[in-house]
Amino acid sequence: MAESFITLTTDFSEDFFAGVMKGVIAGINPQAHVIDITHALALGDIRAGAFALMVSCAYFPPGSIHVVVVDPGVGSARRILCARTRRYLFLAPDNGILSWTLERDTAVDIHAVEERKFFLPAVSSTFHGRDVFAPVAAHLSLGTKVEELGPPVPPDAITRIEFPKPLRSDPKTLRGKVLYIDRFGNGITNISAQDVKDADPATARVDVLSSSIKGLSRSYVGALPGTALALLGSSGFLEIACSVGSAAKRLGLKVGENVTVMT
Amino acid sequence: MAESFITLTTDFSEDFFAGVMKGVIAGINPQAHVIDITHALALGDIRAGAFALMVSCAYFPPGSIHVVVVDPGVGSARRILCARTRRYLFLAPDNGILSWTLERDTAVDIHAVEERKFFLPAVSSTFHGRDVFAPVAAHLSLGTKVEELGPPVPPDAITRIEFPKPLRSDPKTLRGKVLYIDRFGNGITNISAQDVKDADPATARVDVLSSSIKGLSRSYVGALPGTALALLGSSGFLEIACSVGSAAKRLGLKVGENVTVMT
Amino acid sequence: MAESFITLTTDFSEDFFAGVMKGVIAGINPQAHVIDITHALALGDIRAGAFALMVSCAYFPPGSIHVVVVDPGVGSARRILCARTRRYLFLAPDNGILSWTLERDTAVDIHAVEERKFFLPAVSSTFHGRDVFAPVAAHLSLGTKVEELGPPVPPDAITRIEFPKPLRSDPKTLRGKVLYIDRFGNGITNISAQDVKDADPATARVDVLSSSIKGLSRSYVGALPGTALALLGSSGFLEIACSVGSAAKRLGLKVGENVTVMT
Repeated sequence: MAESFITLTTDFSEDFFAGVMKGVIAGINPQAHVIDITHALALGDIRAGAFALMVSCAYFPPGSIHVVVVDPGVGSARRILCARTRRYLFLAPDNGILSWTLERDTAVDIHAVEERKFFLPAVSSTFHGRDVFAPVAAHLSLGTKVEELGPPVPPDAITRIEFPKPLRSDPKTLRGKVLYIDRFGNGITNISAQDVKDADPATARVDVLSSSIKGLSRSYVGALPGTALALLGSSGFLEIACSVGSAAKRLGLKVGENVTVMT
Repeated sequence: MAESFITLTTDFSEDFFAGVMKGVIAGINPQAHVIDITHALALGDIRAGAFALMVSCAYFPPGSIHVVVVDPGVGSARRILCARTRRYLFLAPDNGILSWTLERDTAVDIHAVEERKFFLPAVSSTFHGRDVFAPVAAHLSLGTKVEELGPPVPPDAITRIEFPKPLRSDPKTLRGKVLYIDRFGNGITNISAQDVKDADPATARVDVLSSSIKGLSRSYVGALPGTALALLGSSGFLEIACSVGSAAKRLGLKVGENVTVMT
Repeated sequence: MAESFITLTTDFSEDFFAGVMKGVIAGINPQAHVIDITHALALGDIRAGAFALMVSCAYFPPGSIHVVVVDPGVGSARRILCARTRRYLFLAPDNGILSWTLERDTAVDIHAVEERKFFLPAVSSTFHGRDVFAPVAAHLSLGTKVEELGPPVPPDAITRIEFPKPLRSDPKTLRGKVLYIDRFGNGITNISAQDVKDADPATARVDVLSSSIKGLSRSYVGALPGTALALLGSSGFLEIACSVGSAAKRLGLKVGENVTVMT
């Protein structure tokens, strides 16, 4: 256990906060390997965090401890949760950010994180990443059990945010929306590969903003530069992209934008 | 010692410079653990670096080697210093950036870094991070002693920048200013928790720009969105924040702005 | 081999993509040390990637595996190459990004990366960083040989981009251009220290945009703030810089801008 992996997913950006968390972890378990998933989530954006965690966490070794700190409620009465699934441990505020991940990797055990002996001696009211999440993750990596952290929480008592399932308005029409804009300006939607598994890539049509995209592409290349594309992206969801450019910039694509697939 | 931690605090941003420093360290001590504190300091901003180091370094394990490269004077006659305190080693240009940290963690020994056998064979005049700081840090992590690096420097002969202490204009009024704007747009001031330890959180008043803030909050939550808040932040200083938003953006808060506390 | 270093050079920015690559590597070789060179390359900018790799890679320990993912052609028929030189392994799309590096550190062996047993079981068409580059790098770090990855590729059959050599229009005049704008706003040119080794630093003249710079400086300091400077930078090339400021911002310097040296 002493060699386990701890991942960090936060909205701390490149400021010193993530570094300080790593210092705290190093002080408790110098053997822990800390890997940044991302610190570039939009400030307090729980849905972006839920998405990034859902599509990233499964690529880490079993036993990894995934720490998620997008925590606009820090210092309020909101709980911190530790969820144990068959593969991983998750440590996050009880604000719904684990919801989509736990739909895929069911929690075997969820406990509230309350046992102060695993915290730093002084706990601030505004930086629990440093004072609670980092030391608790380090103790977990040394073998502390989830149940030692605090009382159990029934799975239906945690805060959930609904995954916004696409709607099938008729057998041929699926209405979804953009969930996440990635670094490349691609708009990743809530429409999964499974949802469109019967679509013919050659004839499917995807409507978004003023674009009507004919067919599903296999990659970002080949189309006329600047053209809007639809494709099944690496996260397992339909993406709206732009050949040689950012769909976010070129099309004005934003999180929440409607995307309709006609098969 | 071979397993010790080396931290990096620079203004290199996400360019390849920090990566190259890690390559140099890996070549000399493959066992060294390198942790980024931050590379996002404003270009050449010695005060921002002094602040980030002061509030971060104490969270790292004893024996850590803290490397600070905010070095607008690189290539000039400015010295490089290695300071040994009871807990840490610090490696930084002699431009004052260690001042505030060494007020909290007194230097036992300070030496100028001059011994070229610990440098890369070719030393450029513009990237001492790679050619001097990285290899020297790696050698320190392997057990090289501070005194082997060069001649001792008396503590009063190093460049210091004064920590701008807040002024008490009358027994009830403390005048300070914003020292650092963090990633969340919070303005961290030079007014410490100790400075306002006698204030009544319910009745204290904080004036900044055109806002007059009533009372000290415990966290960022609970206030009306957009409202200016004052609270004792995780760095141990009074912060000006904005509920659900950036105080820097909403209030136009900048480094140097006056903040007055009336208790 | 299990302890070897893997470096990452990509245009993934701070999104979750690089983190996921590290998760995949950790799952295959938990002992591998992954070092980020940079993830801040401009989107799809093969020349910027070629430059960053060329000036960074030699600072890493022999045996390092350099992974470069600037891959606008992902999902098309473009090959992935693994090149073995005397010091390193390089893994990159066959789009020319290795060209300038291999001019300095000749490839002993180049193979196409085709053997699917070293890939993730499911290979997406848009994220080969995760599905191909990361697992292949991890296997290489465990001792897999280059020749196991796929068929050999003759050195003259790989995509090359020409290093834009400066032109000598007369014995005293060298015409080059800006190759890379670094984090500090310095414009790094294609004119090497070797190219101007006969220039007298006191009398050489450098013309760029509307500035005519007299003499080569040794460092960024000493000049009047805002003044344009020319100096031989840490990458071994002539740089256009600005004292106390960004040459990119102050002078409007861009990649491709002409720079003329008169000696």
